[in-house]
Parts: sequence; structure tokens; C-alpha cells
Amino acid sequence: MSGKKSFCVVIMAGGRGTRFWPLSREKRPKQFLPITSRRTMIEETVERLLPLVSYSSIYTISDGGQARLIKRLLPRLPEKNVLVEPKAKNTAASLILTTASVYLRNPRTVVAALCADHLISKRDVFLRKLEASAEAAAKEEVIITFGIPPTYPATGYGYIEISRHKVQNFRGERFYPVVRFKEKPGLKQAKEFASDGRHYWNSGMFIWRADVFGRKLERYAPEFFPYWKRILRGLKEKDDRILRAVFREIPATSIDYALMEKAEGVLMTRGDFGWSDVGSWSALAEIWTRDEANNALHGESLVIDSSSCLLYSPRKLTALIGLQDVIVVDTKDALLVCRRDQDQRVKDIIEALKKRNAKKYL
Amino acid sequence: MSGKKSFCVVIMAGGRGTRFWPLSREKRPKQFLPITSRRTMIEETVERLLPLVSYSSIYTISDGGQARLIKRLLPRLPEKNVLVEPKAKNTAASLILTTASVYLRNPRTVVAALCADHLISKRDVFLRKLEASAEAAAKEEVIITFGIPPTYPATGYGYIEISRHKVQNFRGERFYPVVRFKEKPGLKQAKEFASDGRHYWNSGMFIWRADVFGRKLERYAPEFFPYWKRILRGLKEKDDRILRAVFREIPATSIDYALMEKAEGVLMTRGDFGWSDVGSWSALAEIWTRDEANNALHGESLVIDSSSCLLYSPRKLTALIGLQDVIVVDTKDALLVCRRDQDQRVKDIIEALKKRNAKKYL
Repeated sequence: MSGKKSFCVVIMAGGRGTRFWPLSREKRPKQFLPITSRRTMIEETVERLLPLVSYSSIYTISDGGQARLIKRLLPRLPEKNVLVEPKAKNTAASLILTTASVYLRNPRTVVAALCADHLISKRDVFLRKLEASAEAAAKEEVIITFGIPPTYPATGYGYIEISRHKVQNFRGERFYPVVRFKEKPGLKQAKEFASDGRHYWNSGMFIWRADVFGRKLERYAPEFFPYWKRILRGLKEKDDRILRAVFREIPATSIDYALMEKAEGVLMTRGDFGWSDVGSWSALAEIWTRDEANNALHGESLVIDSSSCLLYSPRKLTALIGLQDVIVVDTKDALLVCRRDQDQRVKDIIEALKKRNAKKYL
Repeated sequence: MSGKKSFCVVIMAGGRGTRFWPLSREKRPKQFLPITSRRTMIEETVERLLPLVSYSSIYTISDGGQARLIKRLLPRLPEKNVLVEPKAKNTAASLILTTASVYLRNPRTVVAALCADHLISKRDVFLRKLEASAEAAAKEEVIITFGIPPTYPATGYGYIEISRHKVQNFRGERFYPVVRFKEKPGLKQAKEFASDGRHYWNSGMFIWRADVFGRKLERYAPEFFPYWKRILRGLKEKDDRILRAVFREIPATSIDYALMEKAEGVLMTRGDFGWSDVGSWSALAEIWTRDEANNALHGESLVIDSSSCLLYSPRKLTALIGLQDVIVVDTKDALLVCRRDQDQRVKDIIEALKKRNAKKYL
């Protein structure tokens, strides 16, 4: 790459996942939990980048409360890089704001928009792909995305369909033209996608040059382009009222839906770097080290006749007896015991707590 | 009955059950846990007696640590009634010591030896039977015991075989001559016992006059009689050294084995007063109030798609999802999650903790 100056990373840290309840709470969503290592996922995300990007080129975007947490967790991140959105309005709004901030410093800066709460186990592959993508995005009028090679017929992800023609190469990596972005499929279609070699999971990670992003908005997302212009003005004039007004008005839409599904000139490179969005306790069980009976255990434990269990209980001794496929998560004020194939029902717990107005557990 | 003066109750409170781990600990066994009501089982045991027996006629026998706990839980119990054994040596030693103490005050006092950790749901029936038994024991050279009508072919209890001949009546209750005490049977024999109408579970509760007890020992347990005499002397001379010496030497044997299995002149009355020895978490699940899905829940909880579970978690919110027949017990420093039909394996946890020398959890 031609120099770190022209490349920066934006870490989207505003997510509000509830699927790791009772460990995750409204004020401490997944990206702020130490569930994939001893460090929180956002710390891992930053650490992973450091061989390629210095702290001064790493930005985060989140709400104010999360920003305070980020400053505490990542004290070496320059304070001015910890961007705050006036209101959570999904990724289109976040990325228009952050890309506009970068644009005002240097319009030709390449921005890599990454997620704070994804696991990437093959760091070297990831950094190689990221560097090549940044180079591609610097040179061409394109948006780059990482497509994850499907390992099973997932119905919980959107898919990216690629063409095998007009494949481009940068620094030895292959970049495929994106034919279209597809919404989460049904199982039948997911099975086709998972096996036809032309479909990849949409990772939600994108790389673009700031000026290219503006032009793509203008051309393919004209209803969002005025917000881009207003935000640029608000930032230039340091007028927070403009930003707040935009964030009141702007539709709460993902960047995928607002721009990617409509844009031309999008390239995909294979994200074959051990990616997981760690979407549930059982997904986490696949990631953790397991004992000979397939139990993933975090915390002091005594296990008798149990298999394929996940235990997160850092505060106390936990004994498991005669259990198969059970998730046990103990926190200071709440305990979850859940059959593993039912872990998506944690959201029903959240709903029940909201109905009870039991805020302290949310 | 001819007056409360000639009747007293001894509550055997020295047990060291581990089957309610992690709630029960070495220093807080079952009788000191509030598991059958908001009060501890020993408090329940004393309260149950109060219509018939005043505090001044209720004794406890335990070790010194337990005695301190008893004084705290039962402040109205006279301090001198809280007897301490120099060393835990099973029920033969405890009951020789306590009966000897009573004997020295009045040899014709009837002693009812009861357990601190049994549940009796039909209090009125129990007190009526107890009163009639005390009257029988006051008048005759007999030992009375309560036999529990078997409700299933239990292999975990000893049995009492009775004769239907020469049945005696006191105050409207029937007293059957005991043919013999039988050790815990195998399943085949248990099935016979449970259905032949001549076998009852040995409840471990006995009623005798202090002087009769001494004579029964002399005749049927001659190897224990010298200890009885030495203890009487030790108590009379207030010489603790004698008591300590006896407790070093005396075999650690149950009163059943030491005396009951050999004695003649033992009568049994039916203990049909809703008895349970509450021997395990799953036994407790049968006793607690249950919801429409047969879940026994103690503590704030959210239950989704779960049935026949037991939850004890008084300190925090607990969510159960998709579980059948699972026991969850949360305490300050330890958590148990156990398949219900495996709850006897809690003893394996205790063994493992001993091996690890993890004393704080024992």
C-alpha cells in the first residue's frame, strides 16, 4: 500500500445485540464482552488491525455511552477518533457520518468499515485481504466487500452473488464483480446458495474511498445523498444542530439496503479468514476450546457424565451432572439454563423482561 | 398423658448430609436449611412439637458447632437442653448420652428420639401418635417406633416387619409387635415388602422410658451397656474426661444396629402422618408447590418450555429454556445443574472436592 495516511478503519461499535443475555445487557452488548478471549471483542478487533493500521487511523462509531466504554477499553485510541452518533439509526447513517468525517480530512482516504463484534481467527489472511482491498479501493471507482464462503445453508445471513467473469487481481487477491446482494433466503434456496460456488455470506464489512462513497450515494442512493451533504456541512461548520437534525430525519436503514443492493461497481473478495459473527451462545460453543466430551467450559467446574454443554460461570464453582446440550450462563444478578438448540429463545426472555419492566436485567 | 414433666423429646441434630450440595455444606447440613418452608427444618421440627411439648422438655444433641447454630435458630430453647456430644459417633452413642442425661433427672421420663431433618406434613396425626406412644412407653417395658407405610418399593430405607397378632391399643392407636428390623433390601424384596402389609419403613424415630432403655441395653446390647454406665457416672460426677473417653472408644453405630435389631419388646405404630426424610433434591421437588408444568421453583424465574424442573435460586433472576427434569441450585459460591434422575451423584461432586482439597466448597 502506498502509505498508511490514505487508509483508515471505522469500527462500527453501536450494536445492541441481546442474544448473549444474561451476559450481554443494553449497556454492554456483545462487542464489549470478553467472550472470544480474555479481551472484549472490540479490543480484539483493534488488536487484530495493529500490524497494518496505527491507532491514529482507527475510528469507532457508537452512541455516547458506548463511546465512554470504548475510551476506557482502548485508552491508546485518540479521543477524536471515538466518533459519537447523535442517535442510533442503523449502519447507513453511521457510515455516512463517519465517511463524511474522513472525507473532510482527505477525500481520497480509503475507509474500511468493520464490525466490532466479529471473530476472525486467521489474522494474517485477513490483513492480507484487507490490504489488497484497500489498494483496489484506492485505485478504482469501486466498493469492496468481504464475502464469507458458506459452510452450511444458513438462513440467518444475507448472501452476495458474484460473477466469475471479469475477475480482477490486486496484490495476488481475486476480486469478483458482485451481481447482487440477496436478503436472507429460505432453507431451500440457502441450500442452493451454499453449494453453487457463486454465493457468499454478506459479512457486513465494506471498503471504499471516501469520495467514491459520496459519488455512489449520489448515483445509487439519491434519497440518502442530501443527508451526506448536510452532514458534510454540519461537520465543516462544527454545527451539532445540523447533525442532530439529520439523525432525527434519516431512515434507520442498513448500508446494505440503502446502498449496496442498488450500487454498481461493487467487488467481492473471499473472506476465507476464519470469520464468525458469533451470533449465539451455541455459536460460541463452537469457537471455545472444548474438552473430550465436547463441553466448552469457562469458569471453575466439575463435570460428570455431561457432553456438548456450554458453561460460562466465572464467579463460582459449577457442577454439571448428566447433562447433554445444555447452556449454563451465570452472572452476578441473572442465571440462564437453556437447551442448546433453543438459544434463540433468549429473545423471548428479553421480551418478557420488557413486559415486566424489569429494567435492571435488560 | 399424665403430665409433661415425665415426657421429653430429643432431637437428633448431628447429621452431616451432603445430598443438598451446594446448599448444604459440612457446617450447614440439611436440618439447618430452609428447604421445606421459610424456616429451617430443625425449627420446623421444634415448632411442630409445641402444642404437646414445651421448650423446657425439648433437647437437642449435636456437635459443638451445630449447638451454636441451634442456639441462634432456637433462642427459646433452654441452653442446658442443647446437648453436645464430644465427638460424632452415630446415633447409638448420641442416644445413650442423651437418655442418660434424662435418666439422671428422672429415670421414669419418657424420651422420644426424633430426627431434626424429617418432614411431617400431618402435624395433628403426628402429635396424636406421639402422645399415645409416650403413654404406652410410660406404662410398659417397651420401646415404641414409628413405621412409615411404604408408598413405593424403596431400596434406600430399612424395613420393620410387624406381627398382626397381640396388637395393643393406647388412646385409640394400634401398636404392633415388631418381629424384626431389616436392612435395606434389594429391589425384588422391596417390592414384596411394599405390598405385603407387614412391612414398614424404619423412620429412625423411637420412644422409650429412660430406665427401660438402660435395661434394654443391658439385656440386648451388652457391649454398649458399659458405656451407658460410664456415661451415667461421668454426668453424675460432671467429669468431661469420662465422656470424652467413652466417645473415643464407643463404636460408631446406629441405635438400630446396636439395639433395635436385637431387642425384644419393641412395638410399632403406623407413621401415617405425611412423613418424608427429604433425601435428595428430587425428593424435595415432590414436596414443593409446583406450577402447571410440574416445575418446583424457588426464586425469581422466567420459565419457557420447561417441565418437571427444580429451581432453587433465591439470589438472582433465573431463566430456564427448553429443559425437562433438570435441577438447578444456585448459591453464593457454587452452582449445580443436574439431571433429575442423577441427583444421587452429588456425592461424587463431594468426593471430587475432597480430592481437590477444595474445602471452601465442602
